[in-house]
Amino acid sequence: MKTPTPSMPQEVLDRLRDVVGRGHVLTALEDRVPYGYDASKLCAPPHAVVFPADAAQIADILRLANMYRFPVYPRGAGSGMVGGAVPDRGGVVLSLARLNRILEIHPEDMVAVVEPAVVTGVFQKTVAQYGLFYPPDPASLEFSTIGGNVATCAGGPRAVKYGVTRDYVLGLEAVLPTGERITTGTRTMKGVVGYDLTRLLVGSEGTLGVITKVVLRLIPAPEAVMTVSAVFPRIDGAGRAVSAVLKARIVPTCLEILDRATLQAVENHVPLGIPSEAEGLLIAELDGPPEVLPRQVGAMEKIFREHGASQMTRAETAEDREKIWAARRAISPALGRIRTGKINEDVTVPRSRIADLITFNQALARKYDLVIVSFGHAGDGNIHTNIMVDRSNREEMARAEKAVEELFQEVLRLGGTLSGEHGIGITKSPFFQWEIHPGAFDAMLRIKRALDPNDILNPGKIFTPNRAFFETATVTTTQRAPRP
Amino acid sequence: MKTPTPSMPQEVLDRLRDVVGRGHVLTALEDRVPYGYDASKLCAPPHAVVFPADAAQIADILRLANMYRFPVYPRGAGSGMVGGAVPDRGGVVLSLARLNRILEIHPEDMVAVVEPAVVTGVFQKTVAQYGLFYPPDPASLEFSTIGGNVATCAGGPRAVKYGVTRDYVLGLEAVLPTGERITTGTRTMKGVVGYDLTRLLVGSEGTLGVITKVVLRLIPAPEAVMTVSAVFPRIDGAGRAVSAVLKARIVPTCLEILDRATLQAVENHVPLGIPSEAEGLLIAELDGPPEVLPRQVGAMEKIFREHGASQMTRAETAEDREKIWAARRAISPALGRIRTGKINEDVTVPRSRIADLITFNQALARKYDLVIVSFGHAGDGNIHTNIMVDRSNREEMARAEKAVEELFQEVLRLGGTLSGEHGIGITKSPFFQWEIHPGAFDAMLRIKRALDPNDILNPGKIFTPNRAFFETATVTTTQRAPRP
Repeated sequence: MKTPTPSMPQEVLDRLRDVVGRGHVLTALEDRVPYGYDASKLCAPPHAVVFPADAAQIADILRLANMYRFPVYPRGAGSGMVGGAVPDRGGVVLSLARLNRILEIHPEDMVAVVEPAVVTGVFQKTVAQYGLFYPPDPASLEFSTIGGNVATCAGGPRAVKYGVTRDYVLGLEAVLPTGERITTGTRTMKGVVGYDLTRLLVGSEGTLGVITKVVLRLIPAPEAVMTVSAVFPRIDGAGRAVSAVLKARIVPTCLEILDRATLQAVENHVPLGIPSEAEGLLIAELDGPPEVLPRQVGAMEKIFREHGASQMTRAETAEDREKIWAARRAISPALGRIRTGKINEDVTVPRSRIADLITFNQALARKYDLVIVSFGHAGDGNIHTNIMVDRSNREEMARAEKAVEELFQEVLRLGGTLSGEHGIGITKSPFFQWEIHPGAFDAMLRIKRALDPNDILNPGKIFTPNRAFFETATVTTTQRAPRP
Repeated sequence: MKTPTPSMPQEVLDRLRDVVGRGHVLTALEDRVPYGYDASKLCAPPHAVVFPADAAQIADILRLANMYRFPVYPRGAGSGMVGGAVPDRGGVVLSLARLNRILEIHPEDMVAVVEPAVVTGVFQKTVAQYGLFYPPDPASLEFSTIGGNVATCAGGPRAVKYGVTRDYVLGLEAVLPTGERITTGTRTMKGVVGYDLTRLLVGSEGTLGVITKVVLRLIPAPEAVMTVSAVFPRIDGAGRAVSAVLKARIVPTCLEILDRATLQAVENHVPLGIPSEAEGLLIAELDGPPEVLPRQVGAMEKIFREHGASQMTRAETAEDREKIWAARRAISPALGRIRTGKINEDVTVPRSRIADLITFNQALARKYDLVIVSFGHAGDGNIHTNIMVDRSNREEMARAEKAVEELFQEVLRLGGTLSGEHGIGITKSPFFQWEIHPGAFDAMLRIKRALDPNDILNPGKIFTPNRAFFETATVTTTQRAPRP
């Protein structure tokens, strides 16, 4: 962990203070360090952290950044998994923390307008009071923000039925890297006036604009919920059951899978009575009208049984549902007991290839003598593949690195994608071009250059840093962090 | 109708023939004229029409276009409403007609891969054989193509519940204006690797790339359908009923509204027994599990009654449903009997403002002594406002033009958008900047310039032609067509 050179001239710091006020600029090392991290555990403290009050101040900051050529890193809750918010080239972290109001909830239009620092979970609870539902549910939802969710196009278990953040963003207000304030999209479902800047910004990881307002689509809250868990002696049975459920025109809200290594870790941590010979657990949650759920759940249980499920539990009350979800929720603490670190890759494959991927991961674990646990959102093929590591063990880390490379190759071979939820940030950027072909890579880069000609906004993210993108960039110290 | 100068050098025509084969280039006037039109009825015949066989030939054509600086206009079925496919600067129409195969339907992954010239209705019937459903249903679906639907982000009545084309496009293969072939997106619901080029191309009206392959998401076909029509003595009752239905957590597949002028036109054309004093008709279709529909339809009927519905019809069989939809389908021929022409504006407002918009349209008709019929997709606020005109009557056309301007001002004041489905093309481009603010306009233009530096792909569309965008463009004859 070191602060990159060159340092920030006093003149720039003074001008930043002029914009946001003296009390809203942090420069002491102990204040800057927490803003050097995100959930990837990479760290590179910035030269300063600024807390603008509104979009006008953000525009001023970005104009200064272009004038003095310093990098600016937009930051929500810092809960990203791939270093997307890590200020690894020095410069200024732009915290959106003060833009934290829910501005409007319109039950008739089923639209809400929020500022970026509204916490996703808080927003969901607020709209629930109106009988409305905001489905995206990243695991971080109790602390991650809507702005960060939009910047990364956050997903979550419910994507099977409800889609991802992209599907709920109708419009944005944003500040472009060059300081122009823009409005995109509409307050209506339909809208085809000009290019879709809204969805260009969604998932752009803070490299194309700073989001200052979000117009979100809401839907009616589901009337009822039912949950089922099923133990499978064979993982391919579980994988095929996932496809069979969807083919039977049953679309669960969530359809989660846990492989044997995950189940063993959980069972060692909190005994939940899952048979030790089980190769897989499926957790399916259905929502909808109460008349339909018993039939759909019954049909799903029949499919599970036909695919070899040896043990099933059905939950209709909130309390019983909690018990089923306990296994899913226990994964994270349970993994903490296996190793101090993990490399969590959110690879995604077509759902017909889920069993193939999990079987591959098991072989990979044997080949490289690693503990690899696979679990995640089977319904949309998003299998979180966690390679358990002790980061201080260089030899193990080297094996893990090799395993990750093989994993990525296999995922692409299966017709999948390297990231379903986390994005590219820093940690996946060396592999970006494995998936993105040269023409598309160049198109993205042309768009980045067109909107951020001085490369001041979250530079070095997404695009592989070893290519010389921007001849105009003046802060050249690239602190290439090691993969976590 | 005149062919713009300069003419096309023989050398270019020869080279085009080298690329696609002699039989796949049309240059005779009688062959070119049909390719000068789209459904806007604007016409400007191109210098040539080419029919490439595949993406490689398209790439070659675009490279020639950059070398010789001639415009290229991608064309599907030519059913666009705003002149988006009209070759009004001369050059080459690039017909996608030969790329017309359904390449893959994968029931397990619920994904299909198609070439652009597949007709949307044919595709829907094909996937239905697998129990699958492709919801987007533009009125043109029996002849418009998937490629055109993607290029315009086509909507349709079902958008209330199912969204628009954008929501079903997972990935694309396309050729960029500069000739690079690219692949975008994924075959999975989730995917956050790099910028969302997929959705940047969706709705870009053929200005950013030529679509050569589309990966589409499919969903399970609904189990049952029920339809209800309700006559309202007062239009505001109908408008408020739309909101009340959605607030009651009932999401119809379609929720269509017809105002008094529409009903009168229909009744004069085919008597359907709609009371002459009726101010509005709602047609609601619900789909879903059969156990739920009667309850939801009952609740909806109760809401309609509470908002003043005087007459209601419920249809459970396909035959009865047809009868209800007859009124909706009769609109187009019925309007043909009022006037020879119509200006059809697909404006969209937040659904809480539907009644306001229809009432405004009625006042506008009185103010300008015009027949204005309003109908459309009430559930998503997309009200097709048709000003009936005799195009040879210059004085009436002048009044209609003024009415359109007032309509657009009102729609924006109500928080709406100038186009929910048709796009901007040529006919709406003079109004584009009424909705799109300067910063966003410039961002779009920077993207266009970055991807199409010589402005060869569908030039002059979307962006207002009176701005000097591209200093490099050599074909300068802008045939500004009059508004239809």
